[in-house]
Amino acid sequence: MANTHLSQATLSEHNRSRVLHHLYRHGVESRANIAKALDLTPAAITKITAKLLDAGVIEETGDLEGARNRRSIGLHLNTAKFHVASVKFARSLVQINVFDLAGTEIHSEELTSIEHTEIPQTIATIHERLDALLRDDPQIIAIGMAVPGPYLRREGRTAMVSSMQEWRSVNFIDEFSQAFRVPVFMEQDARAGALAYRLFDAAHENRHLAYYLIGEGVGLGVIDHDDTINGELGAATEIGHVSIDMNGRECECGNRGCLERYCSAVAIHDELNARPELVPNSASLTHRKACNALFELANSGNSDAIELVQRIGTYVGYGCVTIINAFNPKRIIIGDIVSGGGELLLSAVQRVVNERVIPELAARTTIMLSELPADATVTGGAAVAIEALLSHPGAFMDDLAS
Amino acid sequence: MANTHLSQATLSEHNRSRVLHHLYRHGVESRANIAKALDLTPAAITKITAKLLDAGVIEETGDLEGARNRRSIGLHLNTAKFHVASVKFARSLVQINVFDLAGTEIHSEELTSIEHTEIPQTIATIHERLDALLRDDPQIIAIGMAVPGPYLRREGRTAMVSSMQEWRSVNFIDEFSQAFRVPVFMEQDARAGALAYRLFDAAHENRHLAYYLIGEGVGLGVIDHDDTINGELGAATEIGHVSIDMNGRECECGNRGCLERYCSAVAIHDELNARPELVPNSASLTHRKACNALFELANSGNSDAIELVQRIGTYVGYGCVTIINAFNPKRIIIGDIVSGGGELLLSAVQRVVNERVIPELAARTTIMLSELPADATVTGGAAVAIEALLSHPGAFMDDLAS
Repeated sequence: MANTHLSQATLSEHNRSRVLHHLYRHGVESRANIAKALDLTPAAITKITAKLLDAGVIEETGDLEGARNRRSIGLHLNTAKFHVASVKFARSLVQINVFDLAGTEIHSEELTSIEHTEIPQTIATIHERLDALLRDDPQIIAIGMAVPGPYLRREGRTAMVSSMQEWRSVNFIDEFSQAFRVPVFMEQDARAGALAYRLFDAAHENRHLAYYLIGEGVGLGVIDHDDTINGELGAATEIGHVSIDMNGRECECGNRGCLERYCSAVAIHDELNARPELVPNSASLTHRKACNALFELANSGNSDAIELVQRIGTYVGYGCVTIINAFNPKRIIIGDIVSGGGELLLSAVQRVVNERVIPELAARTTIMLSELPADATVTGGAAVAIEALLSHPGAFMDDLAS
Repeated sequence: MANTHLSQATLSEHNRSRVLHHLYRHGVESRANIAKALDLTPAAITKITAKLLDAGVIEETGDLEGARNRRSIGLHLNTAKFHVASVKFARSLVQINVFDLAGTEIHSEELTSIEHTEIPQTIATIHERLDALLRDDPQIIAIGMAVPGPYLRREGRTAMVSSMQEWRSVNFIDEFSQAFRVPVFMEQDARAGALAYRLFDAAHENRHLAYYLIGEGVGLGVIDHDDTINGELGAATEIGHVSIDMNGRECECGNRGCLERYCSAVAIHDELNARPELVPNSASLTHRKACNALFELANSGNSDAIELVQRIGTYVGYGCVTIINAFNPKRIIIGDIVSGGGELLLSAVQRVVNERVIPELAARTTIMLSELPADATVTGGAAVAIEALLSHPGAFMDDLAS
């Protein structure tokens, strides 16, 4: 009998999760339409929605036009009732944001220019800031963290850190998972970006999608048939350490010719420092600002800058060729610092893909620059936390647990 | 009410499939143990197993030792009752086999040395042979076909065929899917190999695994968290066309430096033809025989042959480095013609992986040569057909449909 009971509770939670995901994607819906879409009985939908209404996760709206002119009451997710905090870790930058469930930004702050010696201080500051946010905003119900890969998800740490040397000593699970009044969820940064697209970009199907993060490191998150590709340890889709030249530049990971050594913001900054005629004060800038200075120079018509952006785009394009042959996504979304190269960069990427990918695959893969209102990895932290709520509502609301 | 009914039928089929998969993996089990493992009620398990017994898919065995010394009746899959046919397509070879549900080979035949001009004749021969096998063996309930990638699964054809030029004109779905009294299931060849390991290799968990096919072409099948990675069109995990050198050898796919241009049986055969001092009659041999001649020469101690096998192993190793960084499987199983290089090849592969992969990932990835009794792609064709039966038993047995 215990098994039967467990099974029923698991099934109820599963169906609540399906209803929440459905409402997240479709906005306002009648009970009848939800039941139809999810193949649930009228009795089941009544019971499920009653619990979710009690918990305040969903709300009733005015009448909807129903079939045969019958009016029916609409239901929608109460996206304003709960908030989530998001933390994005990068090499020299930590970004902390708060979003509502619709992905609308409520708060944003940055800790910048983090040096190796300052890591303990930075960790202390992150604790302080999150404690303060949680104190000031009782609506926050979860924290999502986006951590550079290769992220060993069961162990809570980054395996090797060519662009994250400073953070190697931090065990994210030990450091943060039990530190707050709300649960903390962690994901590899680019994978969080892919989840942000799946959750917040309702205009596309997003069952097969790659988020190609080209920032201080180069990362990739892939959604294949609705699920993220994680690998055994969480270290899959590390495109930054896939080699484009077996005899190429050395990388801290042990490999040669790693993509990240050619087109990350750090690699671009190194090149700018070696060519001071392009961005004269480049050595004094952050990686982001140095790259942005190059992109501005290219946009102003400087032919050396244009040529460099095109060359970077060619490397980014080699990465796309590998992404298509390895993962065959429907869309590749290029985001983070280097996506600032804009159409000039994108056209170089597309040229490489057209040359080097089987025509019928090239023609059926969309390559675009990220269009989310905020950085996809930052939004991704929120997406990870919101997905946790939608998938396991019972874990967040005592009212639902029974 | 229609929805409720549909839901119940779907649920029944789902639970039948779970019971079959459980018995496939665990051999003989009591109803009580199956119910416990799958979280089903005693009433449900009684109903499900009654239908499967009626259909002859499962059988009762003698008494099992149960809890508290109570005897209980064991159930097991009737693996001898049904057979499946398997067809493996490669560049110059078609292999047709028949297996029982346990993967035991019942029949094997090969069509070899297929030239471009003979494709229509070869297709006709495959039809004839399968018709004859189906006529002679009424136990055959399905056919599985393993087709070289990039295989566009909805369209039924190989997208581009650097090692399959001859087969490009064939639409496998049009040609075969409705041609026989039994259903036909098709899968990319290396993916079928990965499915063979998941199904037939009960000694391992196999939730995260890569089958690395190095034959006339180079392919990869990846199981990530129990599911194959397919991509939007079915063209994912095409490791043979991932570049190891952005300025390297040209490939028919449009890319440069494709892995397949360095370590496929065809690439090895080309090299042997250019070095007649190694295998004097190499030009007159098939790709397989030329490679085997090289491996024998290396095993006999010829230093030039040893050096060449080690170099091939180095290229295979670069592929492994990419596989680990892209897919992070728990095991990489190297199979097909080039795995004939044996321990000499494998040690060269392992050396590259140890040098070029982050130590904590290298230490936690097992790389091995295929150990299945038959070629994993051939067995894979059977696995694809058997998986179809285990997953959708109702589609095979009228008795279950109600």
